[in-house]
Amino acid sequence: MRLVVIGGVAAGLSAASRARRLDRWLEILVLEQGQAVSYGACGLPYYLEGRVSSPEELVVYTPEYFRQERNIAVRTGAQVVAVSHPRRQVTLAGGERLHYDRLVVATGARLDRSAIQGGELAQVFTLQTPAEARRLKEFLEQRRPRRAVVVGAGYLGLVLAEVLRTHGLAVSIFEATSDVLGRQDAGFTELLRKHLERFHIELRCQTRITAIEAERVAGVPCDLVALACGLRPNAEMAAEAGIEVGRTGAIRVSERAETNLAGVYAAGDCAEAFHLVTGRPVYLPLGATANKTGRVAGANAAGGRERFAGITGTCILRVCGLSVAVTGLSEVQARKEGFDPVAARIEEGDKPRYFGGRPTAVELVVDRRTRRLLGGWVTGEDAVSGRINVIATALANRMRIEEFGQLDLAYAPPFAPVWDPLLTAAQQVAKLVD
Amino acid sequence: MRLVVIGGVAAGLSAASRARRLDRWLEILVLEQGQAVSYGACGLPYYLEGRVSSPEELVVYTPEYFRQERNIAVRTGAQVVAVSHPRRQVTLAGGERLHYDRLVVATGARLDRSAIQGGELAQVFTLQTPAEARRLKEFLEQRRPRRAVVVGAGYLGLVLAEVLRTHGLAVSIFEATSDVLGRQDAGFTELLRKHLERFHIELRCQTRITAIEAERVAGVPCDLVALACGLRPNAEMAAEAGIEVGRTGAIRVSERAETNLAGVYAAGDCAEAFHLVTGRPVYLPLGATANKTGRVAGANAAGGRERFAGITGTCILRVCGLSVAVTGLSEVQARKEGFDPVAARIEEGDKPRYFGGRPTAVELVVDRRTRRLLGGWVTGEDAVSGRINVIATALANRMRIEEFGQLDLAYAPPFAPVWDPLLTAAQQVAKLVD
Repeated sequence: MRLVVIGGVAAGLSAASRARRLDRWLEILVLEQGQAVSYGACGLPYYLEGRVSSPEELVVYTPEYFRQERNIAVRTGAQVVAVSHPRRQVTLAGGERLHYDRLVVATGARLDRSAIQGGELAQVFTLQTPAEARRLKEFLEQRRPRRAVVVGAGYLGLVLAEVLRTHGLAVSIFEATSDVLGRQDAGFTELLRKHLERFHIELRCQTRITAIEAERVAGVPCDLVALACGLRPNAEMAAEAGIEVGRTGAIRVSERAETNLAGVYAAGDCAEAFHLVTGRPVYLPLGATANKTGRVAGANAAGGRERFAGITGTCILRVCGLSVAVTGLSEVQARKEGFDPVAARIEEGDKPRYFGGRPTAVELVVDRRTRRLLGGWVTGEDAVSGRINVIATALANRMRIEEFGQLDLAYAPPFAPVWDPLLTAAQQVAKLVD
Repeated sequence: MRLVVIGGVAAGLSAASRARRLDRWLEILVLEQGQAVSYGACGLPYYLEGRVSSPEELVVYTPEYFRQERNIAVRTGAQVVAVSHPRRQVTLAGGERLHYDRLVVATGARLDRSAIQGGELAQVFTLQTPAEARRLKEFLEQRRPRRAVVVGAGYLGLVLAEVLRTHGLAVSIFEATSDVLGRQDAGFTELLRKHLERFHIELRCQTRITAIEAERVAGVPCDLVALACGLRPNAEMAAEAGIEVGRTGAIRVSERAETNLAGVYAAGDCAEAFHLVTGRPVYLPLGATANKTGRVAGANAAGGRERFAGITGTCILRVCGLSVAVTGLSEVQARKEGFDPVAARIEEGDKPRYFGGRPTAVELVVDRRTRRLLGGWVTGEDAVSGRINVIATALANRMRIEEFGQLDLAYAPPFAPVWDPLLTAAQQVAKLVD
């Protein structure tokens, strides 16, 4: 019995490891097209920043580790070009064919350079692999660019903008939509725009970049372009093999992470995930989800029966000293999903003044009809992750706002005011639904 | 229509303020036996520490503020000595009688000095009121004591121990039970004992103090004794008035904060609260609960229909640089409540190493039969409040461990590892129930 896993980063290796734990006799083979496996891609910006001294530092485990400690074979440089499910076979780029009994597709996502004219120019970078990060770092050090354009105001674009600013570059971020983080929230975007401006980072929304010229983008002179937009699932090969792809363009999976083909599972950035608030599949490729869905795919591929409940779309980042986190739906998104949303925002100290409390802002979105909490965001310096996680936990449990407003949250002066900002925000938004 | 509120601190003033918001015509009279109202008693240790320069800084609102801004009459020095419900009357110490239509009892709790022989000696202190805090601060500055005994290893005892240590005193904590924070958790107590030892604070459990001598307690020489044990609800007067008191000794209330007498409500440290994990009333006097129950009592006293869902017993403190938080039940407590608990503890970095991750420990307790999460604790330096709050939110929603282990918690390198320590702990404890 052989399990083949296509992809050797977060989802693929989580799947392989979990499968091994449930079945010590299963033959497990991981095929990774790149040279590196098991690296924390989320740490690559911090290699550019200098906090991480080399991309190798971000490698969690080596192929040797998997072979020796977990009896999992990992082949790098092994690009799968086709899957034939009737034959239970994958074909590698060199023509080699490998049999599988169970298959986990964890092919990830890519930033499609070719979608932008000039995307192949030498001064254009993505930040998906250690090799690409190394190339960008060398460019920064050797060419000393002075003006950067970042394309995309999602997680990666915002983090990259700060890193480039730290390197002394003038930075403009161009975002095709009206909003940052794909959030459809004008107030939130404005808050971030103002914050970035204080650090001399320009944010221009509703500016779709279709072409990069040698020394300028959308009329703005620049000698470095970072692409951080249009992440697309690597689902084409799966589709050709008869694996169903959802409306999002990513592989459709059941709550068991199984595709429409029996014995074929998908996980991570190539697959959809169930959104716990909308109740529909969504494409939100994030590292933590890749690990969780990989685990479930691996367990079920090894004969287990696990399910992945779904996500609420939690995302956090720190940019220029401000921590920013979102989860669930914004008011606009909620309305589009058929809810009757109201939103309220509060800003107050995150601790008593005598413990150096700093401003934190919380917005909560609630459905007027059901009084159910639908989403929220938190900004501040400290404790932002803890507060967004409470909202995410409430969303996973479909909490109503009055229950949320009475949560027994930790109170002591070094940590929070007696009414936690989350509870104050709950009181404010509850007034709008009363 | 007149609402009388007995007690002018957290619960009483929350009740009065909430009642005013729901009914602008109601006559509202708050009777406070002390001289100060609306002070944050939780901040008093930080006045001793020096971070807060005077107890006045902890006063949130003055009686004048309530009169002018909220049309709420607040009388200080007004000690209620009796309640006659048939007459709808309270009697003050001077003999004055005041009519009420609705009554909120928010008489708080007290540390009973008289329960300990020698409790009235000049070197014995409690820390319940600003006046008492001032007396202790003067004693510290003028008498320069060298060796302190703290009686009680609850929240206040632990915080006071650190404050006294900061003042240069040798400190021993004597606790009557086997455990700190009333948690019945030997491992957690041991962890705290070791931490305190590093700061030369001695913790002796199973040492009940019944007498204080002039210069020693339980054989240990000392020139200062801080009482931080045996907080008891001020429920006697209510009981004499026919208000039902529960087995805990505190006033029994419905989820509407109403007592057995129609139109008489109770809230805060004098009342029981419903425990969301055990499903039974419990006596856990804490400031955040006082504010919430006061709010509900005030709303219903003003004709509203609000309910207080209950508590999970969340408690947090920082002691000698370590943040420590508990919620729900320990394994021993869970067994006593009839559950079939298992517990697992993990310790790992709270962030990636390159973001200066520091050790954090998480213990989760789960019921083997239902797989329901029952409680947990978290220790560490950073993000402890956020993590305990996620557990508290999960408990309020009766989450099962496998759902908890898939929560969409925020991940980015500045904040957490890709598997949040909460999720890793969930995986560990899930293995024990599989």
